[in-house]
Amino acid sequence: MKKISGRTITRALLYIRTLETLLKDKKDSVSSGELARITGLTDVQIRKDISSFGKVGTPRVGYDVRELRNKLENFVLQKKEIRVVLFGVGNLGTAILKYPWLRKGKLKVIAAFDTSGSKAGKTINGVSVYPAEKAPAIIKQSKAELGIVAVPEDKGQDVADIMVKAGLKGIANFAPVSLKVPKHVIVRNIDLSIEFLSLFCDTQTR
Amino acid sequence: MKKISGRTITRALLYIRTLETLLKDKKDSVSSGELARITGLTDVQIRKDISSFGKVGTPRVGYDVRELRNKLENFVLQKKEIRVVLFGVGNLGTAILKYPWLRKGKLKVIAAFDTSGSKAGKTINGVSVYPAEKAPAIIKQSKAELGIVAVPEDKGQDVADIMVKAGLKGIANFAPVSLKVPKHVIVRNIDLSIEFLSLFCDTQTR
Repeated sequence: MKKISGRTITRALLYIRTLETLLKDKKDSVSSGELARITGLTDVQIRKDISSFGKVGTPRVGYDVRELRNKLENFVLQKKEIRVVLFGVGNLGTAILKYPWLRKGKLKVIAAFDTSGSKAGKTINGVSVYPAEKAPAIIKQSKAELGIVAVPEDKGQDVADIMVKAGLKGIANFAPVSLKVPKHVIVRNIDLSIEFLSLFCDTQTR
Repeated sequence: MKKISGRTITRALLYIRTLETLLKDKKDSVSSGELARITGLTDVQIRKDISSFGKVGTPRVGYDVRELRNKLENFVLQKKEIRVVLFGVGNLGTAILKYPWLRKGKLKVIAAFDTSGSKAGKTINGVSVYPAEKAPAIIKQSKAELGIVAVPEDKGQDVADIMVKAGLKGIANFAPVSLKVPKHVIVRNIDLSIEFLSLFCDTQTR
């Protein structure tokens, strides 16, 4: 896989999300100026980024939203499918499994694990739930790449340890606890209270 | 309220959580280098942020964990309480209501609304669930500031319209749909697929 800087990726993902919103609003073309207004990035940065993804756009007409979106996705995801496992099938885990994009996009939850034992054997939105003991074998065999921690706070570290041992390189953590992992593993803490507080602060600074 | 950028707030909140974990582990002091390792931010960024919160830390000894935590909280929350309402008491909404931070922190869910009618009358983690028709009156009376959209895609816009009409200034949107709101209202789309994709990309560029 070609090395792309983390910042470029972050911007590319922001573009993808913006373009998807435009598509939903039935907008077919967009100018770099409009993208700048929506994303908060500069016009220059946007044109530079987009030109690095290949030839797209017609002067004075702008970019074709769908074409640009697809180019960006190919750029970011030089891979067919990203395999994900989920730990914790409570309310949050179930909500994640039922989330519409997981069945549509390149991300695929290949297995869910239940740490309490009561949910194993179920199938939620096409994903099988296994007892936690089966996780190491299933993760290794399926070559899963990312893990989602959706267990309560007090079980977060145990689950992270299992994930690291099984070879996962990225962990999305919803448990409100900082996980200790080796340096080669990346943890993305998804803290809803932080999202809400930051939203609140934005409403105050407008 | 002093103007603080949303990004600084986001980092400050990440520091707060990290420091709370350290406190639980009975760690009394921490260096910027340790904070960098745990949070994934750079040492330079951390020292810059922390110095902007006021005088804390002793060279070579590090920061007093409890003192830094308190300074950060005062910095971020120049307000006693942020009142939030939630629409949609399915798996996701229930997970949000049960989220530990929401009961401990300054964010307070003051009411939940059920759009299907089947959950009204229940109490989840101390929060009462009302039928959607009661939302305008309850939002206005309680002076709620933020709304959370945790309903299915096809009900997202209706709920956003109710929120806007009732005077909410910030909307955290979990429904995979782009909401149309007037310019004075801020929508924060919480798109888990983008979080996971960006995490995946980070694991590739390490």
